[in-house]
Amino acid sequence: MATATLTIDLDALIANWRALDAVTTCETAAVVKADGYGLGADRVARCLMHNGVRKFFVAAAEEGVSLRQALGPDPEISVFSGHMAGDTDMISDMGLTPMLNSVDQIVRHVEALPANPFGVQLDTGMNRLGLEASEWAAVRDLVLPRNPTLVMSHLACADEPEHPMNPRQLAAFREMTDGIAAPRSLAATGGILLGSDYHFDLTRPGVGLYGGMPFVEATPVATLGIPVIQVRDVAEGESVGYGNSWIAGRPSRVATIAAGYADGILRAMGTDVSVFSGDQRCKVIGRISMDMIGVDITDLGEDPSRLELLGRHQSVDTLADAAGTIGYEILTSLGHRYTRRYKVG
Amino acid sequence: MATATLTIDLDALIANWRALDAVTTCETAAVVKADGYGLGADRVARCLMHNGVRKFFVAAAEEGVSLRQALGPDPEISVFSGHMAGDTDMISDMGLTPMLNSVDQIVRHVEALPANPFGVQLDTGMNRLGLEASEWAAVRDLVLPRNPTLVMSHLACADEPEHPMNPRQLAAFREMTDGIAAPRSLAATGGILLGSDYHFDLTRPGVGLYGGMPFVEATPVATLGIPVIQVRDVAEGESVGYGNSWIAGRPSRVATIAAGYADGILRAMGTDVSVFSGDQRCKVIGRISMDMIGVDITDLGEDPSRLELLGRHQSVDTLADAAGTIGYEILTSLGHRYTRRYKVG
Repeated sequence: MATATLTIDLDALIANWRALDAVTTCETAAVVKADGYGLGADRVARCLMHNGVRKFFVAAAEEGVSLRQALGPDPEISVFSGHMAGDTDMISDMGLTPMLNSVDQIVRHVEALPANPFGVQLDTGMNRLGLEASEWAAVRDLVLPRNPTLVMSHLACADEPEHPMNPRQLAAFREMTDGIAAPRSLAATGGILLGSDYHFDLTRPGVGLYGGMPFVEATPVATLGIPVIQVRDVAEGESVGYGNSWIAGRPSRVATIAAGYADGILRAMGTDVSVFSGDQRCKVIGRISMDMIGVDITDLGEDPSRLELLGRHQSVDTLADAAGTIGYEILTSLGHRYTRRYKVG
Repeated sequence: MATATLTIDLDALIANWRALDAVTTCETAAVVKADGYGLGADRVARCLMHNGVRKFFVAAAEEGVSLRQALGPDPEISVFSGHMAGDTDMISDMGLTPMLNSVDQIVRHVEALPANPFGVQLDTGMNRLGLEASEWAAVRDLVLPRNPTLVMSHLACADEPEHPMNPRQLAAFREMTDGIAAPRSLAATGGILLGSDYHFDLTRPGVGLYGGMPFVEATPVATLGIPVIQVRDVAEGESVGYGNSWIAGRPSRVATIAAGYADGILRAMGTDVSVFSGDQRCKVIGRISMDMIGVDITDLGEDPSRLELLGRHQSVDTLADAAGTIGYEILTSLGHRYTRRYKVG
């Protein structure tokens, strides 16, 4: 058992969804792209569905196919990348709802699958996905009579509530959509927290469900316990790990634990993270290897069989700070060698 | 088809193995842990087996189980993390050969599976895995009569040929093993390139097979082509992507491509990488998103349907430099949403 165990607390996930749902008076969907932000899209989405979620979002049609198989025919599964060349059969056979991003995609969709539901994504300034204002003006009278399931856009700076881009995108979205009959959506997790002006008819929380910032009150969902392969005494002056980057400053007790950057523990975290034995903090030492990490357990007073990297004492966002990135990347990097255990009740 | 295609050139893989094999006069194994450094352990190992490789190494028994199912009963599959609690049935049922790392593991193995093959890993200064010299002295006369398949150690600084740690570990290994009958192994890719003193009876190349440094002459194995979701004109002064971090300095043509940090394109690469359309370089712009990346295609003169991130024009190690890491991490991070295509001949 030289593989770590990732425990996913489905009650915490549901609590986070409910907390974000309670912020608004509109419908709340769930974004489960990138394998449910690394936690397992099938299990995460099934659990959300059983707790009342009816609309899900994924990045690519391939993800939608897998999700449809997990969820059955009822929930709406929308695809952010829209209707790309090669997607037609997947969209049709699996009942997916593409968010059409361009005139090209609109033409492709309406020609190939005139009766298949679709939404429209508008660009309100992020310049990443969606129709420009001028394109929307050109096609809206052709598109709206076909009853899109949703007209949506995405905020570029929602994690920074004071950023002037937020009201600018809101104004652009209203200008492009005020008065239409179709349901509208602008907010993901960050947008939900910007206030009711941003909520419209549907919100699309992602990272907040999984315990990551910017949803400060999120309940942690993931706990990662890593087994100890071996412990040893290391004399003062001896080195540990690749490149001899850590030298023992005192006689030390060192554990080698069985996970590394091949499991998504970003090498950039270096020695800025700790692992925990119960409530006791132990420093990571030396370079993070592909499959192993060294830990100074000198002050622990015992040899642990397992140490916790992620959980009550150290959040996704603490790991992200250590690696110079954001919690989203910590989550989506979670390794495929981990045993995933889903905890309820 | 909003998913990228990772093409793995199995001929290049075999060429790399043969080139590393030709450096030595001893046997050459192959390390296929971490899902064959991200390229697919089953396919990679089957191909190596059909080209004469008889010994494979993985990190954990769970990886060994999967590999045995792919390779059938013949090749030797050794497990670096040894015989951990909970591993006994996997080792026995799947005919795995644990590299025993501690007295605890030796006792566990000999008590549970006295007739099952095993190897021994010694620590020669890295302080990560393996028996210390004093532990080895205490147990070697009990262990050696049981005919270990291999007595091995691992170099901490082999990627730095001039590092004094290399001869120090070599001397420690010789002191602990000279005169024994069992086959010996010290060198992975870096060690092979340190010269014949480091070769002993078996080498264990990993990263060099997959086209990564420190094997400078390695043939690139992986090519990553990413489909374009959408292209748009962006006016001078407009921003692209999260946080408005890129502002167009001229009227620009921008493509959004369908891969991101959830696919292992480390966010830390930022805008220090390019993508290629044929031989033409296009700059990545803005922040790398979870599922998408922005690209400046203004100078391309046409709208591409696909852009190449990894391949002939940009190596694993170039990407690693941009992300402040090593090629190993670029490989093992390669995403699970990619369609993997295996090319031969």
